[in-house]
Amino acid sequence: MNQKSGAASIKPARPVYILNSASVVGTKEGQGPLGLLFDKVGEDDMFGCATWEEAESTLQKEAVGMALDKAGLKQEDISYIFAGDLLGQSMATSFGISVYQIPLFGLYGACSTCGESLVLGAMSIAGGFADRVVCVTSSHFASAEKEFRFPLEYGSQRPLSASWTVTGSGAFVLGSDPGESSIQGKNLDGRQGARKNSMRAVKGARARITGMTVGKIVDYGLKDSMNMGACMAPAAASTLEQHFVDFNSQPEDYDKIFTGDLGKVGQKILVDLLQQKGYDISEQHMDCGIEIFDGESQDTHAGGSGCGCSAVTLSGYILKQLEERNWKKVLFMPTGALLSKTSFNEGKSVPGIAHALVIETLG
Amino acid sequence: MNQKSGAASIKPARPVYILNSASVVGTKEGQGPLGLLFDKVGEDDMFGCATWEEAESTLQKEAVGMALDKAGLKQEDISYIFAGDLLGQSMATSFGISVYQIPLFGLYGACSTCGESLVLGAMSIAGGFADRVVCVTSSHFASAEKEFRFPLEYGSQRPLSASWTVTGSGAFVLGSDPGESSIQGKNLDGRQGARKNSMRAVKGARARITGMTVGKIVDYGLKDSMNMGACMAPAAASTLEQHFVDFNSQPEDYDKIFTGDLGKVGQKILVDLLQQKGYDISEQHMDCGIEIFDGESQDTHAGGSGCGCSAVTLSGYILKQLEERNWKKVLFMPTGALLSKTSFNEGKSVPGIAHALVIETLG
Repeated sequence: MNQKSGAASIKPARPVYILNSASVVGTKEGQGPLGLLFDKVGEDDMFGCATWEEAESTLQKEAVGMALDKAGLKQEDISYIFAGDLLGQSMATSFGISVYQIPLFGLYGACSTCGESLVLGAMSIAGGFADRVVCVTSSHFASAEKEFRFPLEYGSQRPLSASWTVTGSGAFVLGSDPGESSIQGKNLDGRQGARKNSMRAVKGARARITGMTVGKIVDYGLKDSMNMGACMAPAAASTLEQHFVDFNSQPEDYDKIFTGDLGKVGQKILVDLLQQKGYDISEQHMDCGIEIFDGESQDTHAGGSGCGCSAVTLSGYILKQLEERNWKKVLFMPTGALLSKTSFNEGKSVPGIAHALVIETLG
Repeated sequence: MNQKSGAASIKPARPVYILNSASVVGTKEGQGPLGLLFDKVGEDDMFGCATWEEAESTLQKEAVGMALDKAGLKQEDISYIFAGDLLGQSMATSFGISVYQIPLFGLYGACSTCGESLVLGAMSIAGGFADRVVCVTSSHFASAEKEFRFPLEYGSQRPLSASWTVTGSGAFVLGSDPGESSIQGKNLDGRQGARKNSMRAVKGARARITGMTVGKIVDYGLKDSMNMGACMAPAAASTLEQHFVDFNSQPEDYDKIFTGDLGKVGQKILVDLLQQKGYDISEQHMDCGIEIFDGESQDTHAGGSGCGCSAVTLSGYILKQLEERNWKKVLFMPTGALLSKTSFNEGKSVPGIAHALVIETLG
């Protein structure tokens, strides 16, 4: 029984493994502090394409292909793909992953989409609906600026509270089995011959997903799309508090608590908001957006953002730390700012949302 | 065990009930052939709001509120909401349902999103992750024309292959239990006192979801956004063929096979494509987009479309036919055209996707 551990949380009864993952990033991300950890760094940010949107599609296609290769799997081994991006009508996804012909659940949770895709992917595994799924998200600096802000050609100045959308895509292969040779000969869906490829050996898993907390929309009424860290911090605080209550846990139960892209402004607000609720996360908190760039030398202001930011940081950095046993248990919580060009121009606020996953070493 | 019934299908082991639903539509839909079946018809298409986007948000808010009322439930009874719309970054959803403070999975599958939300909602119930969830989608004629085509003020002429986006929202409450007094006193999540409201009686369910087939992206290379029926028909054919194979079923096993919004052009292509694959669905096939408007007197050309179209037709018309036992088993398959303003202007094709659900009477 996949017991709901509380009002908004899931503790899967069947284990969910992160079999493998891959990250593809742009040049700026490759030059940043985590640059050497990514699987592929593009030579330029067009990735051989004619438009920024096609370049972002290529990021998703390559990340999924590499994650499958690293897991020793083929597209026929995958039951479902949970995917999304930041563009209107999720265009990077529609044109990026159609080549794989895997049944698709298209998702939109702004920069929290990486968390949303992993939660739904893990649910499909833990519920017995699939044995292997792929979760993928992407963002691209240039396509995002065009979609949400100003044409890059304007050369608009950016305030210090603004974040820099990460050019990158992270893909994850989740499975019900830790891999290696243990699934040889197993008939995974109970029907003779229904999935010929289910007997292909996969390599050993990288980590486990042991808990999930699904976020609500939280709107403090902020309207500044150049300060998305502040817009998202209340949602991060809400999901984190819910998580601590649902799992009866404390900040010190985790080696690290990662948010997706709050940046330096949002981080301070999150720590303050949780302090008011009786939780001190200042020791454990890290933010993917702060880690991925060197703000001073790379001129990225508050930090990186985008639903590629948390995805490539999880794939390249966090999972590696777990594999090397530097950390044993991490809370990973991508954060999203729910705005569009239209909502911004119509004077609406920027609500936030955040979804959290507990990711642990294999045992 | 929620056995995967084939390569892309799910046959839930735990029953999934549609406890209740609600539909809110605009004036034109209220004047159409199904007009009397909808729960609420707006006096005008602004629904008391200042913008079309706010009007669409109001549709979702009202549909969810009415569906909860009709089910005898409150927002605290709902574990998750699966929601989406057609606007960039799903803005109708973000501003429409935030008032309910229910953990949210944001979805994007164009006009197939109603199907996607019901599949994921049903998975969360069948997997034991939730006892009650809400699925909601919406579209609005004016916000969609602005988002995808031309400003309404241009008065652009529309070809006869074009469809008319439905102004409407349909919301569905799914549950693990058929309702009435049977859940009194049951501790639904296994934890003492964790959900105080879980003992509130719900009224009897309207129907059951007994099977699901998840679609892939299908792209025949068509580029005409004024003929979305043709763009989506290959995806509908692909999902339908997969469904017949996975469930070892034939068209005559269903009283009706409903597509979402293929319209008159797409319907003909779908029937032809399936004929080539050895399935004759001409007897069973109906299309929500064809049913919702009187094309001649209402000047809607090929038919209705939008992710509100299939949602309000399921809520107002199809579920009623099942309740009255005029039909016993229906295949419901919303269809989506994966385009954006940007992808269209960059000369890309319009790929399609479709997700199918088997919906049956209570027994």
